[in-house]
Amino acid sequence: MYGAGDVRVIDVPDPVIQQPTDAVVRVVNSCICGSDLHPYHNKPRTPEGTTMGHEFIGVVEDVGSEVSTLHKGDFVIAPFAWSDGTCDFCREDLQTSCRHGGFWNANGVGGCQAEAVRVPLADGTLVKAPVGEDSALLPSLLTLSDVYGTGYHAAIKGRVSQRTTVTVIGDGAVGLMAVLSAKQLGAERIILMGRHKVRTDLGIEFGATDVVAERGEEGIARIRDLTGGDGTHVVLEAVGHMPAYEQAIGVVRAGGVISRVGVPQYADAPVGFPSLFGPNITLTGGPAPARAYIEPLLPGVLEGKVNPGKVFDRTIDLTETPDGYRAMDDRKALKVLIRP
Amino acid sequence: MYGAGDVRVIDVPDPVIQQPTDAVVRVVNSCICGSDLHPYHNKPRTPEGTTMGHEFIGVVEDVGSEVSTLHKGDFVIAPFAWSDGTCDFCREDLQTSCRHGGFWNANGVGGCQAEAVRVPLADGTLVKAPVGEDSALLPSLLTLSDVYGTGYHAAIKGRVSQRTTVTVIGDGAVGLMAVLSAKQLGAERIILMGRHKVRTDLGIEFGATDVVAERGEEGIARIRDLTGGDGTHVVLEAVGHMPAYEQAIGVVRAGGVISRVGVPQYADAPVGFPSLFGPNITLTGGPAPARAYIEPLLPGVLEGKVNPGKVFDRTIDLTETPDGYRAMDDRKALKVLIRP
Repeated sequence: MYGAGDVRVIDVPDPVIQQPTDAVVRVVNSCICGSDLHPYHNKPRTPEGTTMGHEFIGVVEDVGSEVSTLHKGDFVIAPFAWSDGTCDFCREDLQTSCRHGGFWNANGVGGCQAEAVRVPLADGTLVKAPVGEDSALLPSLLTLSDVYGTGYHAAIKGRVSQRTTVTVIGDGAVGLMAVLSAKQLGAERIILMGRHKVRTDLGIEFGATDVVAERGEEGIARIRDLTGGDGTHVVLEAVGHMPAYEQAIGVVRAGGVISRVGVPQYADAPVGFPSLFGPNITLTGGPAPARAYIEPLLPGVLEGKVNPGKVFDRTIDLTETPDGYRAMDDRKALKVLIRP
Repeated sequence: MYGAGDVRVIDVPDPVIQQPTDAVVRVVNSCICGSDLHPYHNKPRTPEGTTMGHEFIGVVEDVGSEVSTLHKGDFVIAPFAWSDGTCDFCREDLQTSCRHGGFWNANGVGGCQAEAVRVPLADGTLVKAPVGEDSALLPSLLTLSDVYGTGYHAAIKGRVSQRTTVTVIGDGAVGLMAVLSAKQLGAERIILMGRHKVRTDLGIEFGATDVVAERGEEGIARIRDLTGGDGTHVVLEAVGHMPAYEQAIGVVRAGGVISRVGVPQYADAPVGFPSLFGPNITLTGGPAPARAYIEPLLPGVLEGKVNPGKVFDRTIDLTETPDGYRAMDDRKALKVLIRP
């Protein structure tokens, strides 16, 4: 990406092992993230551009001399942050704060909207999956890189359980994964706020019991109506803009939790007596330690109990990546899968 | 209180039973709260004034026809909110959000910087204690009305345990009670931020392992130094002003919790990527449901295992109440006990 709206597919040298803890992975599937649309809107133009993409599954092509758990030919899932798997933060399942880890497309590590990627700290970062390149499960496995783990993180941090009612704000891929995750954690009432019928229909398939298309004060009033005036115990906020935050404050029940996984596009927000403090509301969330959730969520995907891959409604070649960005930006596609 | 700085002790009619669920309690001990200093600084002058006080222990003098658990002569502890004890919020131990409850000094319910108080919903609100009016435990029992429960609420919402390191911001009575509570919940490292030596010495007695007198960037650097650069898992914020919030952000470890019980004197605050979201910080807290904590904390007080009453460093008669406010406002007293 060379600047806002300017995505190009170019030839670059193949990635190679640089550190003994690296692996090189051939990308089988990658995709475009809702968060990739932020630079697609705002990125200043630069002559060198930047690589893109942080969600992929693939096959190990080469490993460094200190990699012990992976071998050429292994099918692997990569989370959206790389991490050593051994530091105290990793052991606490907060791999996004790994003491030696980092993110794709930064500090000499490339992106996965590409044919191959160098993976640092490969033993800690990658998770093997017992599937072939032709598996019908690939789209669902790919969601474990980010959106499924992110929706699940929202629900886990929000302490969703059988005893909690839930509102999900946002009908993008992460919002829909938050619905699926809340359902998996036992929530019996899941209200999805969204206005795109194709998406909210998929939300209903994933477990939403109610859909509220209204926004702002009207949306808040609808949810208050649906919950006897109280709001829901948990709000999963999967948008990141201030109106979504205000919506969350408006629909959360006293003593409840607002769990954010939409990357906040604001610095300050209401946290005083009327908004959070008086009713004892907890505000939580952050970038999902997707690595932590791959292992617990993988069996459900492999057994076909859940089908999160349904969020992909378009598949393209790598050369069509610029079209993929346009389709997501125009909301003609919910989430675009790339097959290099 | 007739306006900022204007506290008067006047004669008013004795409180009487108005509802069949009321009790009238003769006040044995009440006190002045740090939060009473906010109106002492800011309250607009009014001819009718307002009653003051929300922390008391006393003896039941009279009960309404529907009160079933209390009788004349019972010694009782009153939490700083009254509540029915039966609604869903009360059953969830969030009595500050009781569907039929309320607060002292509002809606026709008086305050306890007085000789007697009408207590609404007495069965739900009051907790009996097996002591006499001459017990040496009275100051400690009185802390269960508010400050001890408030400090404990901070620690509970912050999920303090043996595995967490803790910073307490503020060396007022609530901050010191937060130290005591963190110690009770097993924390082995408790850093108290405060600059009044008499108070921080009491904090050390209650369980603080380190005292940091510095504030702002310097205070943050000190705590980072003490924790290998990481900050502590939990921050208990017992002040309520913006610098204390910023301090909390500065000293909390990634993945940690900021638990606020200082009533926020601000509406908006940083909650974006660099402050809360990026490092997966949870922001929690609110007015303590003190009622919920009286029963679990009472045995420790009765057995003398804890001595939270040490926060009272001055005792006055009811007629001296204006002097009590002045002493607290001038920081000549940490917390003033009133003996009507």
